[in-house]
Amino acid sequence: MAVDDERHVEIVNALDNSHFHGLVCCDPTSVLLLTGFWPVLGTSVVIFAGDGNVAVIVPEDEVEIADVSTSARIIPYKPSQLQSLECPIRALSAPIRLAIASLSLSGKTLGVEFRQTMQPASYASAAHFHASLVDLLGGLCLSLKLVSCDPILEPLKAKKTKKEISLMQWAADIAADGFIEANRCITVGMRETEVAAAAQSVFDTSLKAEGLERSYGFFYCMSGPNSAKAAAAYARTRQRTIRRGDLVMIHANTCADGYWTDITRTYTAGEPTERQDAIRIAITKARAEALNAIRPGVAASDVDRAARSVMTKHGFGAAFRHATGHGVGFAAANANGLPRIHPESPDVLAEGMTFNIEPAAYFDGYGGMRHCDVVAVNSNGATVLTDY
Amino acid sequence: MAVDDERHVEIVNALDNSHFHGLVCCDPTSVLLLTGFWPVLGTSVVIFAGDGNVAVIVPEDEVEIADVSTSARIIPYKPSQLQSLECPIRALSAPIRLAIASLSLSGKTLGVEFRQTMQPASYASAAHFHASLVDLLGGLCLSLKLVSCDPILEPLKAKKTKKEISLMQWAADIAADGFIEANRCITVGMRETEVAAAAQSVFDTSLKAEGLERSYGFFYCMSGPNSAKAAAAYARTRQRTIRRGDLVMIHANTCADGYWTDITRTYTAGEPTERQDAIRIAITKARAEALNAIRPGVAASDVDRAARSVMTKHGFGAAFRHATGHGVGFAAANANGLPRIHPESPDVLAEGMTFNIEPAAYFDGYGGMRHCDVVAVNSNGATVLTDY
Repeated sequence: MAVDDERHVEIVNALDNSHFHGLVCCDPTSVLLLTGFWPVLGTSVVIFAGDGNVAVIVPEDEVEIADVSTSARIIPYKPSQLQSLECPIRALSAPIRLAIASLSLSGKTLGVEFRQTMQPASYASAAHFHASLVDLLGGLCLSLKLVSCDPILEPLKAKKTKKEISLMQWAADIAADGFIEANRCITVGMRETEVAAAAQSVFDTSLKAEGLERSYGFFYCMSGPNSAKAAAAYARTRQRTIRRGDLVMIHANTCADGYWTDITRTYTAGEPTERQDAIRIAITKARAEALNAIRPGVAASDVDRAARSVMTKHGFGAAFRHATGHGVGFAAANANGLPRIHPESPDVLAEGMTFNIEPAAYFDGYGGMRHCDVVAVNSNGATVLTDY
Repeated sequence: MAVDDERHVEIVNALDNSHFHGLVCCDPTSVLLLTGFWPVLGTSVVIFAGDGNVAVIVPEDEVEIADVSTSARIIPYKPSQLQSLECPIRALSAPIRLAIASLSLSGKTLGVEFRQTMQPASYASAAHFHASLVDLLGGLCLSLKLVSCDPILEPLKAKKTKKEISLMQWAADIAADGFIEANRCITVGMRETEVAAAAQSVFDTSLKAEGLERSYGFFYCMSGPNSAKAAAAYARTRQRTIRRGDLVMIHANTCADGYWTDITRTYTAGEPTERQDAIRIAITKARAEALNAIRPGVAASDVDRAARSVMTKHGFGAAFRHATGHGVGFAAANANGLPRIHPESPDVLAEGMTFNIEPAAYFDGYGGMRHCDVVAVNSNGATVLTDY
């Protein structure tokens, strides 16, 4: 696999400017960031040395995927076998020791993950290491000094390379098929589960996914009063039957080999009412103003203000309950992903940053409307990855 | 919500027999075990006192679900708001302090999660706390002594209550709809993605899910040589087109409000060959022998041996590459879930334990066949939850 040179250089620079001699990480998003390989079960560990040499310890079942997605040295291991029964973390001990020694990191200061992160669903079930990886490193008797590397990982994750943005674009293009189907099929009398399944099915079978190792995602449908509940930090499809005049919100998180999108469109069942038209006009203008405000060097809070002031002017300030956006790409849904397009955000936009712009209005008991796009900051403005 | 008395008594007994005065846990499966509420985003924290009093700190967006699923005291909190921007873990500090004080646990020994666990996908994206929750507890200046509670949680998770088994049965019943559709639709010329999407769609829209807060799951299709790759610890649907004579394996992990199934069936595209018939006969007998061996007090390794000896006798010993089963319920796929139905397992079966029985044979480059059921140990044998 061709290495993402742009990414590799940025990590080496970040390490140069830090007090770490290397990084040892296990969060699937961190392994992806540092190697290009997105672990399935969360039991892979990457060791990135300050000199740019990288080793990734991968359960042998996942070597097939790692082989085509990273140029890092792959060290396979067996987390479980028929001949013996051991705690999976223990199986990592010998390969980690080997990798640290071969990268000349014994006795050095290594960055490890201590803080809370959001991890997208990499499989039906995935590992959480809690403190056990840090404990393992401490128990290797290699005189390692372990320090939190979260402050350098998060800014690295905020700014995407050209290759990473192209994968996000790919994911967005496949997701479009699901939204086209949702728009086509929404009918009075259908259940939310039926609309979501129809969109999901068209997405799941899209031939645009050919060439990716893993293309998948989650489509949700929330209608009528349930669409107001979409103001929450998560979406949920229910069995509710769609009625004439309902707002019908379709939300999707989809991924292409580990790079995620966060997309919402809101339709109406039947002809929109005047009220619905008024909300849509406000959201459309708020979106345009937010997009217009985006360019390198701009305060993220200014982008929030651009959208929020339109919503307020149109009488929907109180109904726009959440921030205008947050970083997207390594995690599907992470309200704290950098940059935070939030009234109190200290973040400043830079070229390559990817985030969502999601102006919305929610009215308890009635419904909610949201239009959520994924955008990338380019050299003098915003590229909308979900321009459909 | 009616409390699951059976579960509550078991936890209090386990605490009585431990050196903990209480537990503080954040893994979604642990919150589910200790309260009956399965967090969506993984940012809920449960505090369970040895006297049986329980408080669960829940992001306000998830209170709606917690309300109908637990009788524990719910303490809502705001992980993020428009007026301020803070690290989500910090928002937990005040409510955790309050809960510990109100449960009279200051200065006490509390069990916390340190070890690796497998967590099922509770949403498109979920939180990992790493060491940050333990750090937070240490920083509260409440003279808490923090000790790993994993050794008592895992055995508690292995044995299900009647209520928990009934939810697993519900999940298995809904999943049946997907398997019926897969069996109906598999046709030469279809792509794996199309078969998986068809099964998924019927499952997603099943009316049997009515009454559950969250019914969802993952259907996978692997055909021909890809079905041999299902020997791995995870499943993966690809764009491959099904050919005449292929083995076509459908694997599903589905859940009912947090309780998971692990189910596989293998079909043939067209008439089965003699070789395929021979494999199926061996697997069917191995399954019957394993089921027959199950009852309270039996060594889990004996159940593995019962299945493995049939496979070996039929010439498929080497092709049966993995253990006969592992604990299922709180996690969809966890090869180390108790009890481990593995040749070297020290585990002993007890009434209420739930696990899978998955005799299989894999032939690289040709295909694989697996039949995976979910079973519960009853007072004198096994109840098959997936008897279809």
